[in-house]
Amino acid sequence: MPSDLELARATSSVDAESIAALLRTPNERAVRAKLLPIFAADQVFAKTSRPFKNHAQNMLYALEMSKRILELRDTHKWTHEEWKAALDLQNDSLPITLHEGAFATVIEAQGTDAQRDFWIPKCRSYQVIGCYAQTELAHGSNVQGLETIAKFDPATDEYIVSSPRRESTKWWIGGMGVLANHALVQAILELPSGRKGPHLFIVPIRNQTTHRPLPNVTVGDIGPKAYGGFCYMDNGYLHLSSVRIPRANMLQRFASVSADGSYTPAKHDKLSYGSMVALRAGIPINSGWNLARAVTIAIRYCINRRQFSPSKTEVESQVLTYASTKMRLYPLLARSYAYIFAGRSLWALYQQFLESLTKDGDISMLPEIHALSTALKVKATWDCVSGLEEARKCMGGHGFSHMSGVGSLFAAQTPSQTYEGDNYVISQQIARALVKALGFLKQMPDAPLPDSFAYLRLAVNGLRITKDDDLHMLHARTAGLVEELAKEVATNPEKGWTDHSWTAARVAAAHADVFVCSSLPETPLTKLHILSTLVAALPELLETGVVTSAQSAKELRRRQGAEVEGLSIGDVVGLTDAFEFDDWELPGVVGGKEGMVYGKMLKTVEEWDINKGEMGEEIRRMALEITGKGRRSKL
Amino acid sequence: MPSDLELARATSSVDAESIAALLRTPNERAVRAKLLPIFAADQVFAKTSRPFKNHAQNMLYALEMSKRILELRDTHKWTHEEWKAALDLQNDSLPITLHEGAFATVIEAQGTDAQRDFWIPKCRSYQVIGCYAQTELAHGSNVQGLETIAKFDPATDEYIVSSPRRESTKWWIGGMGVLANHALVQAILELPSGRKGPHLFIVPIRNQTTHRPLPNVTVGDIGPKAYGGFCYMDNGYLHLSSVRIPRANMLQRFASVSADGSYTPAKHDKLSYGSMVALRAGIPINSGWNLARAVTIAIRYCINRRQFSPSKTEVESQVLTYASTKMRLYPLLARSYAYIFAGRSLWALYQQFLESLTKDGDISMLPEIHALSTALKVKATWDCVSGLEEARKCMGGHGFSHMSGVGSLFAAQTPSQTYEGDNYVISQQIARALVKALGFLKQMPDAPLPDSFAYLRLAVNGLRITKDDDLHMLHARTAGLVEELAKEVATNPEKGWTDHSWTAARVAAAHADVFVCSSLPETPLTKLHILSTLVAALPELLETGVVTSAQSAKELRRRQGAEVEGLSIGDVVGLTDAFEFDDWELPGVVGGKEGMVYGKMLKTVEEWDINKGEMGEEIRRMALEITGKGRRSKL
Repeated sequence: MPSDLELARATSSVDAESIAALLRTPNERAVRAKLLPIFAADQVFAKTSRPFKNHAQNMLYALEMSKRILELRDTHKWTHEEWKAALDLQNDSLPITLHEGAFATVIEAQGTDAQRDFWIPKCRSYQVIGCYAQTELAHGSNVQGLETIAKFDPATDEYIVSSPRRESTKWWIGGMGVLANHALVQAILELPSGRKGPHLFIVPIRNQTTHRPLPNVTVGDIGPKAYGGFCYMDNGYLHLSSVRIPRANMLQRFASVSADGSYTPAKHDKLSYGSMVALRAGIPINSGWNLARAVTIAIRYCINRRQFSPSKTEVESQVLTYASTKMRLYPLLARSYAYIFAGRSLWALYQQFLESLTKDGDISMLPEIHALSTALKVKATWDCVSGLEEARKCMGGHGFSHMSGVGSLFAAQTPSQTYEGDNYVISQQIARALVKALGFLKQMPDAPLPDSFAYLRLAVNGLRITKDDDLHMLHARTAGLVEELAKEVATNPEKGWTDHSWTAARVAAAHADVFVCSSLPETPLTKLHILSTLVAALPELLETGVVTSAQSAKELRRRQGAEVEGLSIGDVVGLTDAFEFDDWELPGVVGGKEGMVYGKMLKTVEEWDINKGEMGEEIRRMALEITGKGRRSKL
Repeated sequence: MPSDLELARATSSVDAESIAALLRTPNERAVRAKLLPIFAADQVFAKTSRPFKNHAQNMLYALEMSKRILELRDTHKWTHEEWKAALDLQNDSLPITLHEGAFATVIEAQGTDAQRDFWIPKCRSYQVIGCYAQTELAHGSNVQGLETIAKFDPATDEYIVSSPRRESTKWWIGGMGVLANHALVQAILELPSGRKGPHLFIVPIRNQTTHRPLPNVTVGDIGPKAYGGFCYMDNGYLHLSSVRIPRANMLQRFASVSADGSYTPAKHDKLSYGSMVALRAGIPINSGWNLARAVTIAIRYCINRRQFSPSKTEVESQVLTYASTKMRLYPLLARSYAYIFAGRSLWALYQQFLESLTKDGDISMLPEIHALSTALKVKATWDCVSGLEEARKCMGGHGFSHMSGVGSLFAAQTPSQTYEGDNYVISQQIARALVKALGFLKQMPDAPLPDSFAYLRLAVNGLRITKDDDLHMLHARTAGLVEELAKEVATNPEKGWTDHSWTAARVAAAHADVFVCSSLPETPLTKLHILSTLVAALPELLETGVVTSAQSAKELRRRQGAEVEGLSIGDVVGLTDAFEFDDWELPGVVGGKEGMVYGKMLKTVEEWDINKGEMGEEIRRMALEITGKGRRSKL
């Protein structure tokens, strides 16, 4: 008998194939089609026993997965692109993820040719496994405040790298806890001529033969994370007591130190932004895909789940037909599409920037790309994380089971709101850029502006609302918020940016909304996302004078509701199928393509050790100490 | 040297003692003062090793804690009140929690005198340990749809209890996974004269000597929960194949079956609401206290955490001085106070209801208490859960460490949005009651109304806004929302309540806001909570025509900001100290009264097995398989 999900799928009028082609390039789809069956068939990557491990078991398993994925790379002779895709296919980062994504990548970007030639082959062969050690116990956001010191000793042509106090211990470093034998350490460069701010140094931390910490190095694991997130990532700590490394271990493609200790600074001090922008620019699209996974699971589950009959003679209703379920899940589906599309646009812009940088040393796009990548990082992580928990809640009681899978997506995504720059801290950077641009524009109304800043002209021309232009309302709201902030800044010269950080966050989010809603290709979900954005922005539409009547507010909500009502359950299935998820990719057991739910849950539970008795003896004995005669005799 | 927290505390002008007296009765404080040192000193209840256990280890540890807390009860000869307080002091529920709170309690409430006399002593001595088995794999919210059957067999004077199909398996039952030897099973009573709907039956499920499942009983544990929540609760499943129990095992204080199979129904069909109302009425206050724990931890941490200097010569700023931190944490502090106070008011009303029920069989308060307990359950769980995650995020990067402790509070609290009735499902009950009351009022404008419904008169009199009366704005908004829903219901007679479930949830939340904001005694946080409620309600204030100008919206936000600015850091410390938390009660290591943070984190990490090498050998070997010569030789 076909499941409710299969029955719904049969009624879909969505062209899933052409939508899938909007979501991924043909090449991306081909790579996935090649890789997914390999992981789905490999015992090491099976997901059933994962929830039963403790932290030490997780670390061991994470290394086992790392080893196996390297074996698969060699066996199948994956290209570099396929290799990166293979890592991306894991729901959770592995101890080797940042060796690839931050250690080797940064050496390639900021090392001299000689440094690349020396280190990169060792990285590729995994003889050298590294991590990127920036954050310290007492310093994260404030990179200029880092305390680790690399003091140059001209006598030996070495740096002496040290953590001056316990608060300077490197902390949170992914890949460091149990695996890395090298660290790329951000440390203040200290020369005979004085301190030069943070630079990057390659520091060996574990013996390559014994894997034990090297002398004067204290290194370890910082333990479990909240919600069981990042459970296969060995975030670590590192304390250095006068560790000597050769001068050649400072990355010096841009700034360099010669044997006599003289310093050549980088040409552009903004060049080091490059890797930060790259890290941030990748977050919106990943957040969108994570939300897509959760929404797919939740929608499939809510089609199979039935509860309450409209009347005594009818079968119970699918939970997805409830207004409160539709009005939450359909906008979230639209949201996942929106961040995937906007993330792709952002990534394309970033590639364009990189190209003109590499070709012509042209950094003119930097202000726009920096503001956009930051604003989108902020808004995408907020929206997708809140969407993940909402999707889980749409699954009701069973959503709280580890088997729903959605919890693990939230656990993995929620730190994105604080890593690569806390959202409230980095929002100040965007707000500052926008306030500056507005001031500039007020002096020179015809000055050229990057596309994504163009709405600021409204704050100069006066806010002009075209009633039926939804995008225009978003423009006017954002312009209004920037203008208000600019006034606040101008009238309170004693205040610093942390004093404006609350307002700055609203500005950053509004800036992102404009870009996201302008980046959407035509799909059955486009209008819904724009309207949902407007409904969520109602307080600000009111405060910036864009919406002033109860009637127009209600009209936005009515139109949002109409978009939701316009989607049939079959179409929604089509729109989730267009993500082309393999069942292996979706955590948990209830989100599969077939749609059978209860049978799978029961089977999963019955197969667990704890229920088959293997782990039960000790538990049974302890239970009897509570209920049994031993206790009773005392009472 | 005193910590930043201690320095701030010294400047507090808050009378923490008199505020503490508002938050708890003298007796509650005395019981806590007696119990807390016992737990803080007991090795079994130490919290350091907790994050390192897997599911099976958690179950074993949960039983160990259960056994120990019973020993402490006997050693210290705790009163029943002290015993309940001792259970409440655990951050997480234990396998025995629902034996006390649902199994024994419901037998007392719904059992005959003879049934109480037989079962309660066995419950007290823990010879009988029970659980409350209502939810099934395929049925949760829809209790009428439960499938488990108890068929009366007059020939043997027994019930035959069965789960007709695998979807009828009882599921999620707390205490059942590894501990309970009895279950109170909700099952459809089937008599020769027909089916009578769900009733409660005491069914033995495990052998009291061997603790193994009894014949025809399949029972087990449903495994880990999302986010590692409820990790010491053995939620279980139960499948019954024609299990025979004596007729005396149906609870029959209200409805009963005689030996010939004839049925005497309950006098009031609403009496069974009683225990549901009791369960819901306890949730708001617990949610408030949980949020209080999180906010205390976050505020203390953000006082000690410093990042960014206003200028090069100054020391870095305390993170709590950032606008974005204050504007999040202070309203959350006010929110925790609000739900503690409102929860206390609700509980007092519930006691009043119980009294008039017991004394005079008077159930006239039921509609009000049912609507209030439901609305507050909905709004308190939404607000407190979102507040918990926000508090965690205010702690930046370290907030994501398990050591921050706040994650475990969120993990324990988030299911409250779905248990005891999914918030969106039960909101429909309140909305229906309010729409009905409004209809009644329109026909009889002078009809008496319970206090908490009084604002509905505004929808009859016309909305009259007194500009500077904040509570009145909340009244008008709620009345407006009810009126709008009433119109929607009236004009769409074909729609059922699930079609209104989205709107119903807004109505329920608004109904709760009125009660909460009217229940607050005067504290330095009262105005802040009311203003934060209004700011959060801006979209609805706009849509119901209560606020129509940008100016008045901005004015609300300005006044909220002024309340936040009016609180000094010292006062905020005083207001968290007034909660009188013992360090043992606050999960994690960074929220203690002393305020030392980094030293504690470092010390905690250094003491872990995984860093001391005891668990490291296997991990080291596996790391070498990735980095070592074995792999390299192949490449």
